[in-house]
Amino acid sequence: MIGKPVPRIDGRAKVTGKAIYSDDLILPRTMYAKVLHAKYAHAKILRIDTEKAKALPGVVAVYTAKDIKFNDKYFRMGNTHDTWVLAEDYVCYIGDMLAFVVAEEEEIAEEALDLIEVDYEELPVVSHLKDAYQAENLARSDKPGNVGMPLVVERGEVEKDFAEATVFASGKYTFPSLHQLHLEPNSATAVYELGKLTVYCASQVWFHIREDISAVTGIPEKDIEIKPMHIGGAFGARNDQPLPVFTALLASMVKGTVKMTNSRLEEFLACRPSVGMEIEITLAADSEGNFLSKKIKLLSGFGAYSSDSDAVTAIACFRADNNYRFRSAYAEATGLYLNHAPTGAYRGFGNPQMHFALEQTIDKLAVKLNMDPTELRMKNFMHAYETTIHGFKPETNGIKECMAKAKELMNWDEKKKHKVKGKGIGVAALIHCAGSRAGKPEFAGSSALLRLESSGALTVLIGESEIGQGMNTVCAQIVAQELGVDPIKVNVVMGDTSLTPFSTGTNGSKLTTNLGNAVLHACKDLKQQLTGVLRERIGTGPVVVKDGNIYGEYTGEHVMSLEEAAAKACYANNGSPFLGIGVFEPKAELGDMTGYGNLAPAYPFGIQMAEVTVHDDGSFTVDKIVSVHDIGRVINTQMAHGQVYGGVMQGMAAAVTEDLAINKEGVYQANTILEYKPPTIIEMPELVSSFVETIDPYGPYGAKCIAEPPIISVAPAIANALYDACGIRFDKAPITPAEVRKKLMEKKRNANADKEA
Amino acid sequence: MIGKPVPRIDGRAKVTGKAIYSDDLILPRTMYAKVLHAKYAHAKILRIDTEKAKALPGVVAVYTAKDIKFNDKYFRMGNTHDTWVLAEDYVCYIGDMLAFVVAEEEEIAEEALDLIEVDYEELPVVSHLKDAYQAENLARSDKPGNVGMPLVVERGEVEKDFAEATVFASGKYTFPSLHQLHLEPNSATAVYELGKLTVYCASQVWFHIREDISAVTGIPEKDIEIKPMHIGGAFGARNDQPLPVFTALLASMVKGTVKMTNSRLEEFLACRPSVGMEIEITLAADSEGNFLSKKIKLLSGFGAYSSDSDAVTAIACFRADNNYRFRSAYAEATGLYLNHAPTGAYRGFGNPQMHFALEQTIDKLAVKLNMDPTELRMKNFMHAYETTIHGFKPETNGIKECMAKAKELMNWDEKKKHKVKGKGIGVAALIHCAGSRAGKPEFAGSSALLRLESSGALTVLIGESEIGQGMNTVCAQIVAQELGVDPIKVNVVMGDTSLTPFSTGTNGSKLTTNLGNAVLHACKDLKQQLTGVLRERIGTGPVVVKDGNIYGEYTGEHVMSLEEAAAKACYANNGSPFLGIGVFEPKAELGDMTGYGNLAPAYPFGIQMAEVTVHDDGSFTVDKIVSVHDIGRVINTQMAHGQVYGGVMQGMAAAVTEDLAINKEGVYQANTILEYKPPTIIEMPELVSSFVETIDPYGPYGAKCIAEPPIISVAPAIANALYDACGIRFDKAPITPAEVRKKLMEKKRNANADKEA
Repeated sequence: MIGKPVPRIDGRAKVTGKAIYSDDLILPRTMYAKVLHAKYAHAKILRIDTEKAKALPGVVAVYTAKDIKFNDKYFRMGNTHDTWVLAEDYVCYIGDMLAFVVAEEEEIAEEALDLIEVDYEELPVVSHLKDAYQAENLARSDKPGNVGMPLVVERGEVEKDFAEATVFASGKYTFPSLHQLHLEPNSATAVYELGKLTVYCASQVWFHIREDISAVTGIPEKDIEIKPMHIGGAFGARNDQPLPVFTALLASMVKGTVKMTNSRLEEFLACRPSVGMEIEITLAADSEGNFLSKKIKLLSGFGAYSSDSDAVTAIACFRADNNYRFRSAYAEATGLYLNHAPTGAYRGFGNPQMHFALEQTIDKLAVKLNMDPTELRMKNFMHAYETTIHGFKPETNGIKECMAKAKELMNWDEKKKHKVKGKGIGVAALIHCAGSRAGKPEFAGSSALLRLESSGALTVLIGESEIGQGMNTVCAQIVAQELGVDPIKVNVVMGDTSLTPFSTGTNGSKLTTNLGNAVLHACKDLKQQLTGVLRERIGTGPVVVKDGNIYGEYTGEHVMSLEEAAAKACYANNGSPFLGIGVFEPKAELGDMTGYGNLAPAYPFGIQMAEVTVHDDGSFTVDKIVSVHDIGRVINTQMAHGQVYGGVMQGMAAAVTEDLAINKEGVYQANTILEYKPPTIIEMPELVSSFVETIDPYGPYGAKCIAEPPIISVAPAIANALYDACGIRFDKAPITPAEVRKKLMEKKRNANADKEA
Repeated sequence: MIGKPVPRIDGRAKVTGKAIYSDDLILPRTMYAKVLHAKYAHAKILRIDTEKAKALPGVVAVYTAKDIKFNDKYFRMGNTHDTWVLAEDYVCYIGDMLAFVVAEEEEIAEEALDLIEVDYEELPVVSHLKDAYQAENLARSDKPGNVGMPLVVERGEVEKDFAEATVFASGKYTFPSLHQLHLEPNSATAVYELGKLTVYCASQVWFHIREDISAVTGIPEKDIEIKPMHIGGAFGARNDQPLPVFTALLASMVKGTVKMTNSRLEEFLACRPSVGMEIEITLAADSEGNFLSKKIKLLSGFGAYSSDSDAVTAIACFRADNNYRFRSAYAEATGLYLNHAPTGAYRGFGNPQMHFALEQTIDKLAVKLNMDPTELRMKNFMHAYETTIHGFKPETNGIKECMAKAKELMNWDEKKKHKVKGKGIGVAALIHCAGSRAGKPEFAGSSALLRLESSGALTVLIGESEIGQGMNTVCAQIVAQELGVDPIKVNVVMGDTSLTPFSTGTNGSKLTTNLGNAVLHACKDLKQQLTGVLRERIGTGPVVVKDGNIYGEYTGEHVMSLEEAAAKACYANNGSPFLGIGVFEPKAELGDMTGYGNLAPAYPFGIQMAEVTVHDDGSFTVDKIVSVHDIGRVINTQMAHGQVYGGVMQGMAAAVTEDLAINKEGVYQANTILEYKPPTIIEMPELVSSFVETIDPYGPYGAKCIAEPPIISVAPAIANALYDACGIRFDKAPITPAEVRKKLMEKKRNANADKEA
């Protein structure tokens, strides 16, 4: 069952249309809610008049900040607590919310929005990092200097190492804020009844939502249930989810059932996109190419509030370095408020941003050293059991094997030897964490319950979310492996706060490692309980569970089927089902005040390569991506390659097409998927995905993780390949055809000017 | 919390209309099913033509026996397996089913029923016990002699004891078949999806239904979930429930969602009413009134098939005797097939039938002995720790205290001394079991799970049903008592086969005793787990749970609230909730082949008295009922009295109004509640309910049970009171005003004739 292409257990439900998504749910007596968003990205609110809206037949309620007795006027997002539920005095971005309308029909709610009158006094808009950094104007009057986060950390003796160094490379890179583009818009239905709330939605973080709803409504967590629906993608966007919280708040106010679904436009307006960054970086090495030190200066765009922006910024500062042997490092990061959507988690969580800068700068260093970029990296990669500059202590590290395999799959040396005009190849390495202790300091790991009842039904109950990554199938595989049953017959319940263990949710690529281990332990506990009852109450003698059957432990003889054993043992137990409880606490630390520490139980590594063609007319194509990952033991070969395919596609998107740009007025330039331009299947190059299977001592069966890594280094690999093809450094993502053409033309003009001179 | 009038935890949901009953449920894309019932009570089916019905637009499917590939052509009811799903060759009662129609709308399904053509050849109808006993005709061609069950049991030396006896009393009594009259008609919605079935319904026996559905559809039990809905009464009628089984079968055949709801008429036609009986009985005593022996000969009406009829008949033979010290007893019972609805469980389960006979015969004996009927009973009652004639070994027995209290509350001695013309008082004792091992021989007791999670929410998960008796509140009280929390805040999940322990369901008045103990054990287990983690991982030192808080075990100091402890301990446990598992296996035996054994962990006792007035015009009124019960410790005073009120009202119904009579053609005389004539609040006499609280060594806090006892001896108490009032013995229930008037007139005529003679 392990290392096989086991089909997704939810595949049939999804392809037959039986899977129920949040907006499919229609409960009796549902009311519909809509939100009035700001008209300006920064303005003073002079007057809100809701009288006409309230008078519209079918309108149940119209609420502004003044009408609502919030338990807490601000609510949590990420680690901070500075987001207001409804704007009262100011609006600070186009998605800011001024009023809720609840009506009998969705159309009536929409009509009522148009009847709300708002008078604004426009204020200067802080739309770009440069403006925010100079702080001529404020994005929010309560945030002096626009600074949401200062971070300065030095490890080792940076100035000393820089003094010793003989070769330097530096650059300044820009990485935009991106939309996660989960295809299913946020939707929730909240039922308030007799003091209790039941909220149906899709999420990455069921228990966070419950906590947030409790904080905003004042209803104790124990009277709130979050019921999971199928999810159409998350990618970090559902780590901070205001919509279910507000739906629940409204349900508790109108004392009934309220449903709210975002339009696609609202998904763009009121989203929590990734953190855009500007990164200055300098690398210092000795003459033989040994890395000595590194300095970065980073500006990161928080948006109007901070979602996970601070955590993302910190990870950008520290994570990418751990692939290489540095003596010292210096990071200076400033998180800045801007008049756009609050930014936060997106697959990779700050790591793609910094890899874009670091992996290009390494290539620049290779040019200066006249070394092959793969060689320079190989020289500086860490080994397993070494402690990295930021305190990581990976116990497996297959990065060098990844490089060797990637070179082979790209035919790297051959292509370097026989260069073809207009063609280029590029490489970028990557490192990530398989989980960390982040989320709740007092909470380290993961728990799973495995239930076997008289019918023989096996049910795994876990508090994490299935967000398309296939963890439900992985859980079923583990149970199938341990008990010898068919994985499709294992029920996996992921979410439902009234049934499952507590969890900080699906994030940080931690599920296979932490939760997988918990499921494994639950299987072992269950088997022990079951064989104990069979021995003591059914009189089987010592037995073991294998292949869905019970065998004599010493005789090896078939005693009965697992199903028969389930019935007999449950009845003998007076009906009690067997509940295997699996708890896993990873060998991982909380970072110290500077972020230093062995954060994760395991670390995945990878090498991504790109091959591009730059045509004479300035157009270019990405021809091939090679993506080789050390993810420990591969649990599901089909799904692992699927993760690589999806991650690479999103990496491509960041590299060449997507950009959630706003204009000077703070208005998004793209309000539809068509305008936002994600790459389609037509733009996708040939993808060669391969794995290096180190066997991790902590992960279940030696597995580490695969969810985030494939997105991380696609953009720098493409940028490096473009440089290889045409000698131009593209330091600003996305590297659009227009940009390439512009720089090619510039280069041509300069070359001509040189000739003329 | 124990012994207090704690309000029902589901009271608010019920009185505010928030409780969702099965027919309230409307799922997307539901199809509706209807059943074609037989036109005759006994006939050969010559032809069924469904073509016109199938052609009706909106009809999805029409199935007859020929169209359906049953996994098993017959299905289980009670202990037997002789009920066909659809009649193919014969129909054997008016409720027999010939065809299913599934249509897009319920109205279309009904219209299609009218289009099905059936040709019958009428056969002789066996409508009454006497006809079946003589077996001139057969109610079912496959049941020779109409005999469904012969039972002959002798304990001790009956003939010897009869030879020694000097005083005898005998009688022949008739007790009708009765409808349980749960107000909510049966309804179910079954969803078939990707090989799995989910069935929403109300029931007493979730796991029996799952078993039955699996047997009929061939879908393994582990792929079937039964989801509980609120229930509008059961009283035994939902112990065998064909409707959800057939709804599930149809859903699996049309591969979609099917809903079926009985009309009120169908509830009468296709019900599983109680077992009507004819009982001949002779009591033998010595000259001082000591009971020596007893003989009974009993005919019981099974109907067209056997539901629980055989078990009910056996209990009628054995249970009532155990109140008294007999040296020997002889029982001969014959269960007979008849052309009416299959009969089965109804509150009391055969015990009201036999008490009607025995308790009147004891009164006859008292007349012969010239003893007060209370005195004769007191002389013969058993004590605790004595073994009864059928093997019961009650460890508490408050029957004598019940008698003393009842006499006081009725003012018995005073009324006997100062007799008022036309007024009469009567007494009847009763005994029952608090649970038995019946249901599944390999399964003895009950299990409960108690879940405490990080929010502090406490949830009890049990496989028994809340059927209005208030067991959910009792469970909440027990948790509240043990943990010191508010019972309204305890969530009680009763049913949902995918969540709860296995259970044989709600029957036999076993829940408070067995399940109550399981809940108590679950509380203890939970507390032990929680305090263990607090001590070992949170470092609180030895602590105890009390009053919803955690205190130092030795210091007595307040450490933290239970909620705080839940969060801290769950997080320290990596998210795992605490799952207290409570298992209770009662000290009870399976009866031997003759039914001998100590069947129950505890036994309730009671005395019921009636006062009546017989008017000169032949009308009579029941003026007062005194109902005093030894139910061990009373857990909830309000609900216990509620049980007495309901039970007495149903006892009144059996005594004076209800009778599910059929005519010679097998047609029910009453097809509406109005015609069936249950007593209304206007007919209810003054009711004085009181308890004798013996403290049972096995029941939780000393509790036994109260669900069934109050129905048992109301009818004989009223019959005995009528005799006391007018000297006429009414040996046939119901004792209708017409019957009383007729007998009074007869008596008057005879008296006049005597005078004239």
